[in-house]
Amino acid sequence: MARATAHDLAEKLVAGDKRALARAISLVENNDPAGWELVKEVYPHTGRAKMVGLTGPPGVGKSTLIGALIKQLRAREETIAVLSVDPSSPFTHGALLGDRIRLSEHFLDPGVFIRSMANRGALGGLSEATLQAALLMDAAGRDNVLIETVGVGQAEVDVIDHADTIVLALMPGSGDSVQALKAGVMEIPDVIVVNKADHPMTDTLVREIRGVLALGHAEDGWVPPIVQTQAAHDIGIEELLDAIESHRAHIVERGTLAERRSRNLRNEVMELATISLRRELEASIHEDASVQQLLDEVVARKLDPGSAAREILRRREEAN
Amino acid sequence: MARATAHDLAEKLVAGDKRALARAISLVENNDPAGWELVKEVYPHTGRAKMVGLTGPPGVGKSTLIGALIKQLRAREETIAVLSVDPSSPFTHGALLGDRIRLSEHFLDPGVFIRSMANRGALGGLSEATLQAALLMDAAGRDNVLIETVGVGQAEVDVIDHADTIVLALMPGSGDSVQALKAGVMEIPDVIVVNKADHPMTDTLVREIRGVLALGHAEDGWVPPIVQTQAAHDIGIEELLDAIESHRAHIVERGTLAERRSRNLRNEVMELATISLRRELEASIHEDASVQQLLDEVVARKLDPGSAAREILRRREEAN
Repeated sequence: MARATAHDLAEKLVAGDKRALARAISLVENNDPAGWELVKEVYPHTGRAKMVGLTGPPGVGKSTLIGALIKQLRAREETIAVLSVDPSSPFTHGALLGDRIRLSEHFLDPGVFIRSMANRGALGGLSEATLQAALLMDAAGRDNVLIETVGVGQAEVDVIDHADTIVLALMPGSGDSVQALKAGVMEIPDVIVVNKADHPMTDTLVREIRGVLALGHAEDGWVPPIVQTQAAHDIGIEELLDAIESHRAHIVERGTLAERRSRNLRNEVMELATISLRRELEASIHEDASVQQLLDEVVARKLDPGSAAREILRRREEAN
Repeated sequence: MARATAHDLAEKLVAGDKRALARAISLVENNDPAGWELVKEVYPHTGRAKMVGLTGPPGVGKSTLIGALIKQLRAREETIAVLSVDPSSPFTHGALLGDRIRLSEHFLDPGVFIRSMANRGALGGLSEATLQAALLMDAAGRDNVLIETVGVGQAEVDVIDHADTIVLALMPGSGDSVQALKAGVMEIPDVIVVNKADHPMTDTLVREIRGVLALGHAEDGWVPPIVQTQAAHDIGIEELLDAIESHRAHIVERGTLAERRSRNLRNEVMELATISLRRELEASIHEDASVQQLLDEVVARKLDPGSAAREILRRREEAN
C-alpha cells in the first residue's frame, strides 16, 4: 500500500469510519507491514476506550451476552466494538462462526462494530494481533472495546489480558471452570457473570463462586461482584454493565488502571520483540545448515536441548 | 557444585538412585546451572522411557487414577516416575498438594518415584523445567514417566506436549472440558478416560465424547479409545493401561513416535533459546536507560508498541 493511501486510511479510521477500521484490522491480521504502519500512525489516538475482556467456557452464552450488552450500551448512547478471538483449531471453526450470526442484527448500526479473529499466526502471535486490532478500535473512537475469547486456560486468558476489566462468564452446570478458578488455574476475574440464571442450580453455583472468592484476597480492595443474568431475555444486563462501570471507577480512583495499562504495554513491547527474535531463530534453522545439524544431534540424543540452544545463540552472536 | 560432585550425581542418577534423581530435579527446578550440566551429561541415556502425559479438569480424580496406574504398572513389574506439574497460582497451593498425599503409600517402593513441580519460573519456564525433569527421570532408567497437569487450556496442554501419549481424564458432569474439546480449544488426545464411571450420566458423557471424536479425523489412523474407570476401586485400570500401550504400539509401527519426539525436541531447543533471549531483553530494561525511555514513550501513547519493539532490537544489534 502506498504511504499516501495508508495515511488516508488512518484519517478515515480516526474519523470513525467502519469500513476503514475493518480494512485496517485485516492488514494487522494478515501481518501486513502497512498494518503496523497504521497502528503507529493512529497510536496517539488510543487510550480512551473502555476495554473489557470477556471469557468463559464454550456454551455459556457469551454471544448472547454480548448481544444484550450491545443493546444496553446503545440505549446508553455509547458506541462499541467487539473483537471475538477464537484460538480454536480449524476443524470446528464453522460451528463457532455460526454463533456470531446471532449478532447480525447490529450489523447496520454505525455505533456497533463486530469482528472475529481466528488467525493463530505461526508463533503464538494471536495475542499480539489482538492488541493491535483493539488499539485500532480504540483509535477509531469507540467508547467501548470488548474482547471476547473462549476458554479458561492461561493462553486463552492472555488474549484478554490487555483489557482494563476482565469478566468471566459461567453458567449453572459449568463445573470445571469453577474448579479451575478454585485450583488457581485461572486468575480471579474482576466481574463474574452467572448466565442462564433461571437454572435451578444457580444458587449452588453462586455459593461455590463466593466460596472460591473468599479464599483469595482482593489485592486492591476490589471484591468481584457476581451478577446473575438471563441474556436471552435481557435480564440482569443493566446490573452487569453497572458492575463493569463500578470496577472501572474503582481502578481509576485507585490509580490501578494506569498501572495495569502501563504494565500491559511494557509486556506487550517485550512480547513483540521476543516474537521477532524467535522468528529470526526459526528462519535460521532453514538457512543455516549448522543449526540444522545441531538439532539433528539433539534428536539423536547426542546433544541435550539446553546445550543446543546455547550453542545456537553463541553462533548467532558471533555472526553479528 | 563442584564438577566432580556433579559427575558423581549423574552416575548415581543413571544407576537409578532415587535420592540422586530427587536432588537433580531440584537443581533443574531452581534453574541451577549444575542442573543443566547434569541434563547434558545424562542426556545420551534418555529416550528409553515411555512418556505419558495426563491432563483433565480439577476434581476429576487424576491423583487416584495415577495411584491406580502405579499399582497396575508395578503388578506388571515396570518402574514408574510421576511428575505432577501444577501451573496454578500460589494461594490455593495447599489444597492441591493435599491431593498428592494420597499417593504416599508408594513412597517406600524403590520402583516408584513421585515429584511435584509448581515453580512457574519468571518467564513461562515451567514447560521447559518439566522437560528437563522428565529427561532426568528417563535417564534414571524408569520404564514409564508420567507427566500430570491440571486444566485443558493450551498453556496447560503445552506442559505435557513432550509426552509420547496424551491422556485426557474426564468425569460425568465435567461438561466444560467436553465443550472445550468440541470447540477445538483443546487438541484431541490419544486416549480418553472417563473416571467415576459409576455415575448415572456416564453413558451420556461417552456419547458426547464419541460425537466430538466423530467431528475430527484421525491423522495417522488412530481413533482415541474411551476407557471407563472407577479409579478408587481399581476398576478399568488394566484397560486404560492397555489402551496406552496400544497407542504406543501404533505410533511405533507408523513411525509417528520418532517424528513426534523429533518435532518436540526441535521445538524445545527453539523455546529454550527464545527464553534466553527474552531474559536478556528483560535485563536490558533495567540496565539500559534508553530502553526504559522507549517504554515510557509507549505508556505515554507517543510511540506504538511495535515501533518500540523494533527500536529495542535495532539498538541491541548495534550494541553487539
